[in-house]
Amino acid sequence: MFRPEIKVVDCTIRDGGLINDHQFDDRFVRAVFKAISAAGIDYVELGYRASKNAFSPTKFGSPKFCEEDYLRKIIDGIENKTKLSTMVDIGRVDLSQVPAKKDSVVSMVRVACYIKDIDKAIDLVNHFADKGYETTVNIMAISNALTPDLDEALTQLAECPLKAVYIVDSFGALFSEQIHFLVKQFVRHLKPKGIETGIHCHNNQQLGFGNTIEAIRKGANYLDGTIYGIGRAAGNCPLELLLSFLKNPKFNLEPILEVIEKELLPLRKKIEWGYIMPYAITGILNQHPRAAMALRAGKDKDKYAEFYRTLLNDIELT
Amino acid sequence: MFRPEIKVVDCTIRDGGLINDHQFDDRFVRAVFKAISAAGIDYVELGYRASKNAFSPTKFGSPKFCEEDYLRKIIDGIENKTKLSTMVDIGRVDLSQVPAKKDSVVSMVRVACYIKDIDKAIDLVNHFADKGYETTVNIMAISNALTPDLDEALTQLAECPLKAVYIVDSFGALFSEQIHFLVKQFVRHLKPKGIETGIHCHNNQQLGFGNTIEAIRKGANYLDGTIYGIGRAAGNCPLELLLSFLKNPKFNLEPILEVIEKELLPLRKKIEWGYIMPYAITGILNQHPRAAMALRAGKDKDKYAEFYRTLLNDIELT
Repeated sequence: MFRPEIKVVDCTIRDGGLINDHQFDDRFVRAVFKAISAAGIDYVELGYRASKNAFSPTKFGSPKFCEEDYLRKIIDGIENKTKLSTMVDIGRVDLSQVPAKKDSVVSMVRVACYIKDIDKAIDLVNHFADKGYETTVNIMAISNALTPDLDEALTQLAECPLKAVYIVDSFGALFSEQIHFLVKQFVRHLKPKGIETGIHCHNNQQLGFGNTIEAIRKGANYLDGTIYGIGRAAGNCPLELLLSFLKNPKFNLEPILEVIEKELLPLRKKIEWGYIMPYAITGILNQHPRAAMALRAGKDKDKYAEFYRTLLNDIELT
Repeated sequence: MFRPEIKVVDCTIRDGGLINDHQFDDRFVRAVFKAISAAGIDYVELGYRASKNAFSPTKFGSPKFCEEDYLRKIIDGIENKTKLSTMVDIGRVDLSQVPAKKDSVVSMVRVACYIKDIDKAIDLVNHFADKGYETTVNIMAISNALTPDLDEALTQLAECPLKAVYIVDSFGALFSEQIHFLVKQFVRHLKPKGIETGIHCHNNQQLGFGNTIEAIRKGANYLDGTIYGIGRAAGNCPLELLLSFLKNPKFNLEPILEVIEKELLPLRKKIEWGYIMPYAITGILNQHPRAAMALRAGKDKDKYAEFYRTLLNDIELT
């Protein structure tokens, strides 16, 4: 699959940091950035631009805040082919702390929101676009969004200064036919206005990569992945697989394989993500992984059948 | 996806045994059989019917040979909703040792072959059909088969006493568009003769489940899976995911989750399968996993970038 419009966005640090409160040391973040840049990836998302009023800097690491000085320290001295991105959440960003694009090393700001918060997301998009940034809106938990609500949101978003609007399968619940339906709906609204459709898949049912391929087939051009699939709970579409599928000669797989063996493999022994049954179960049941995360933190972490029964009962009671 | 024609075939013991020379003790095999039967799976493949002249019974465990007495011991006293299957390889079966169906607990014999050996496979199919068994042909390494060769093979197979002919992505190399192409080709030849198309996917690129879904969408009705994805190298389509996708009320997920926590998880700590980079790399390069298996057995088992470079060079030299 070679399509020049395709942009790959690596979220290793941003999404992976949801496992460990973004407690990555500078050496690790620099190693990831170096690999991503050497691999020719289009964008790298180095974290959130969260407000220190919303999150304590004693609990959370620097990629949670992505202050300008921090980002400059991370990229210092590394050949930089890759544009920088940061993510903001509704209500968790202090806009006065974000410089204008001309004073920042960041190129793109991605606004994450639920379907109910689209109007707030549009406010933020306008703010960051006015400051000179490229912007996207990433619609989370899309497996719970209703089609008419999405139609209304996409109609509004089509009029915004956006590079892309993302389908985010936060729960890892979607199958290919649902992906096809969503991508077609997004493309129909957005493409005529020059806005691309993005895809960010979670891997609860081992469909992170497969569903990303299906989104590409139907026209998605902004593609998220993470190295070795790192990310909260089951993690994400593995970047190394995505690159090999895309076959664009600008990409180079070797630096990614190297950073997996040197950095991600040792990290995986300390913190967990991937195909772990409770996360598969929340994906199967189209639920947020929080119940599975709680289970994995306790002594019953491998009681899969009981967890499944409990979750089924909880759903039936709601 | 509910389609009454769909048959699910569990290969946990047969394909999983390729990791450990089928050294599963009877207790483990009975636990798997019990779970599969309680889950309502259509068929369970308990091993190969290999000849003891071809494989030493001191090196290989009982599921390699699936002698009648062994199989009766395994299923004894367990409520049996599930039909038994065994697999045979070309040139590795002693036909005089296989009883007629009326004297066997086995319902189905699956003949595994490469595209070059189709004529030999047809001989075996005729033999087993004459003995009263249901039969399938499973075309291995199909990512290396040429379309005209497949057309010729399918034309012949369409005239045989077969339940199904399988697409076997042995190297875990295929993407969805290739799966679509193959399933359409198979269905076109086979369906008019009442023969179903089967799918057996390996999971090297985390597409075992995704490609099985794509095969189902295009008409495949015989579906292979293994519990917790166990199988040689990267393993197979995880049965637990497949069941939850199919949503047929005859299937029950809980017994599978229970046997994962009680049997598969402890086993996974002793022998490895799944998303392991060298197996992903052989999948990406459409190669047999043997080089990756050799790497994993040695001290350089996590030198992914070097392995990738070496394999690329080897391919270019051939």
